[in-house]
Amino acid sequence: MRTARNKSSRKAAEEIFRAAVSAASPYDSVRSNLKLLSKKLKIYNLSLDLKSIKNIYLIGAGKAACPMAKAVEDALGSRIKAGCVVTKYNHALKLKYAEVIEAGHPLPDRNGLKGAQKILEIARSAGQGDLVIFLLSGGASALLPAPVEGLSLKDKKRLTGLLIGSGASIQEINTVRKHLSRIKGGRLMDIAYPARVITLIVSDVVNDDISSIASGPTAPDPSTYTDALDVIKRYGLLKKAPPKAISFLKMGASGAIVETPKPGEKVFKNCENIIIVNNSMALRAAKEKASSLGYRSLVLSSTITGPARKAAGFFTSILKEAKKNGNPLRPPCCIIMGGETVVEVRGTGLGGRNQELALASAIGLEGSEGITVLSAGTDGTDGPTEAAGAFADCSTVQRGRSAGLDVRKYLDDNDSYRFFKKLKDLFITGPTGTNVMDIAIGLVE
Amino acid sequence: MRTARNKSSRKAAEEIFRAAVSAASPYDSVRSNLKLLSKKLKIYNLSLDLKSIKNIYLIGAGKAACPMAKAVEDALGSRIKAGCVVTKYNHALKLKYAEVIEAGHPLPDRNGLKGAQKILEIARSAGQGDLVIFLLSGGASALLPAPVEGLSLKDKKRLTGLLIGSGASIQEINTVRKHLSRIKGGRLMDIAYPARVITLIVSDVVNDDISSIASGPTAPDPSTYTDALDVIKRYGLLKKAPPKAISFLKMGASGAIVETPKPGEKVFKNCENIIIVNNSMALRAAKEKASSLGYRSLVLSSTITGPARKAAGFFTSILKEAKKNGNPLRPPCCIIMGGETVVEVRGTGLGGRNQELALASAIGLEGSEGITVLSAGTDGTDGPTEAAGAFADCSTVQRGRSAGLDVRKYLDDNDSYRFFKKLKDLFITGPTGTNVMDIAIGLVE
Repeated sequence: MRTARNKSSRKAAEEIFRAAVSAASPYDSVRSNLKLLSKKLKIYNLSLDLKSIKNIYLIGAGKAACPMAKAVEDALGSRIKAGCVVTKYNHALKLKYAEVIEAGHPLPDRNGLKGAQKILEIARSAGQGDLVIFLLSGGASALLPAPVEGLSLKDKKRLTGLLIGSGASIQEINTVRKHLSRIKGGRLMDIAYPARVITLIVSDVVNDDISSIASGPTAPDPSTYTDALDVIKRYGLLKKAPPKAISFLKMGASGAIVETPKPGEKVFKNCENIIIVNNSMALRAAKEKASSLGYRSLVLSSTITGPARKAAGFFTSILKEAKKNGNPLRPPCCIIMGGETVVEVRGTGLGGRNQELALASAIGLEGSEGITVLSAGTDGTDGPTEAAGAFADCSTVQRGRSAGLDVRKYLDDNDSYRFFKKLKDLFITGPTGTNVMDIAIGLVE
Repeated sequence: MRTARNKSSRKAAEEIFRAAVSAASPYDSVRSNLKLLSKKLKIYNLSLDLKSIKNIYLIGAGKAACPMAKAVEDALGSRIKAGCVVTKYNHALKLKYAEVIEAGHPLPDRNGLKGAQKILEIARSAGQGDLVIFLLSGGASALLPAPVEGLSLKDKKRLTGLLIGSGASIQEINTVRKHLSRIKGGRLMDIAYPARVITLIVSDVVNDDISSIASGPTAPDPSTYTDALDVIKRYGLLKKAPPKAISFLKMGASGAIVETPKPGEKVFKNCENIIIVNNSMALRAAKEKASSLGYRSLVLSSTITGPARKAAGFFTSILKEAKKNGNPLRPPCCIIMGGETVVEVRGTGLGGRNQELALASAIGLEGSEGITVLSAGTDGTDGPTEAAGAFADCSTVQRGRSAGLDVRKYLDDNDSYRFFKKLKDLFITGPTGTNVMDIAIGLVE
């Protein structure tokens, strides 16, 4: 049984989410921060003398590559000499000056290889006095596969799979990846230098570390071939890994192949990496929207990680505290957090980390009236489902029970999607054109 | 301007913790809420006509039983006709009107059986017009074993062990316990009725559920014999459990033995359960102290549960957000949470949930200057160690490294105590005379 109040809370939560996503729009951000004046090109906090720029090239990759490129084209038009952006299938927009290539994501494919090659060629053709605008957003890592000489895409994928399966951290996996790529780990700057490169970044990683986003094609890489080999040894993969990868890394460690460019190296002299939108900006907008709707509001953190279920436990314990004791805010209030949790896969169900967080929240909220949770991915997708996320409140578990659904079974089977679908509590937005990780909104009436 | 800021963060955190513990002092609470006036006995929000009270009996159990009983004696003196309190070894105080029995905790022993028997006898002797003051605090469940007729303490302990080992929840375990006890699950009221019973409770459980604290000797029990049998079946223990326990529960389920008293039954007519101190009160005092020291301050929640490591992840992500973006508060600020986490035991080290939370926080805080975490048990003990908890900040991991300690190894081995001991970062208070679960204090300068 859903009360009228819960309905209006849902509507408020949805409005708050949409305000957050809108504030993280890469198109809007680029469009309003890229200005072609009579003598200057203004781009974010930089002001470039137009006379000093010979050619402008436009390259990019990621799920938001097309709207970002469109904004650059809308601002610079025919000043763009050539360009190529790689995006996920079904994410293409028609562009006038840059070629658009659709490629595989999350698993890289041959189209991605082709796109990466094109982008490397454009970067190579740029010289002194040229400006390369490089657009980076979520998914770029998979969309730009460029294995080193002699290593097949299949081998590289297999190695990544082995590392993931061994429990290596994303930092460790990136250390290996960067040393087997012709584009990652700052390698793109090896090629583009001495052209000026401005990388505009939609951050989809916790803490906005530019060397992590898409494994940092234009960021200095502090890690070494030896580090990469150490990772492989640490997880006992020296024998299992593709021999070509191992021999390449060993050659690198012996000094026979040049290292990825390190912090302070000259190739970064003409390079700027600018985070244009991130989770924090979205959360700030969510907070403002909530305040304008009459909720006392606060942002807990933009760096929530760990299992979705545990995050739900933490989140609902705060929301219940607000309801019961007025901590950290008195109702009506809105408590917001962002980041990227993980699903600890035990079952065989369908879902995503946001739907799992919502389902676990529903258990925490049973019996606590007047609290609504919306957890959703800012890109509009959550796991392999068409939903962005889901709603939960005190009625969720009971309504599930009435419909013959045992919430704990669904949670244990990681089957949040089917639970919420039957309850009509999915939150569906379609692709939003951005990706700054996830947002969870808790409203306490 | 802010003189307190000149004090080190650690000192401030310690002052804040001590203010919290002091606000949760059972002695102080009882002493200031129990007044013998010429015609009235005032006890918390109750006012009893002295003329209507024949005899006053004093019973109780728990780690704080003695200071609570002392406060009652200091207020009522010779008006107490008889009494008995059971406490943990080395927790006795000399009392004048009530007998003190020390008994086993966390494992019950024969002294506990003796104490429970004494308390049942006193409750039985109380009649119409008599007042029984019952003092309940952490540990009372183990300190008052009273297995039903025909069941040995050994059998009851074995069944509890089997349930714990099968992964049954504490609610499920309590459902079984209540139906095999002569004192729990409201049974004490079966015996004390029609005497008036006022139970003063130091809450050491999340959400202050009075039927959970010590399995609710004076609280209505909504669960049934059938529920208890269902729990045993659910975990496949029907064959393994002591046969006498099973046959007792089956007799109960068949209606041959009277049920535990249910909500609304007449035995609760003359009974009041009053939570006198809890985690929320401690957190509120912590917040006030932090404010008086010049910190913006907020309480996140008094119901934090789940693995200590995950709680540390959330806590540090919020503290770092405060440092970086001023969310949820701008520095200098103090963020406080309470509850009771668990240690997921994987290693063989020494520690407790507070020290584990601090150690995991240290990892999260590496590189983040100006943040200090203190996590500690309000009772002054954390796990099987002499420490109440520990401090962590951005220097912890590095100082460990310099001393040859690998923080991850210690964490994986659940060996937080030895890590912090070597670094001299343990927080040691000795027994505090209260127990309202744990408090974590985060200071951001």
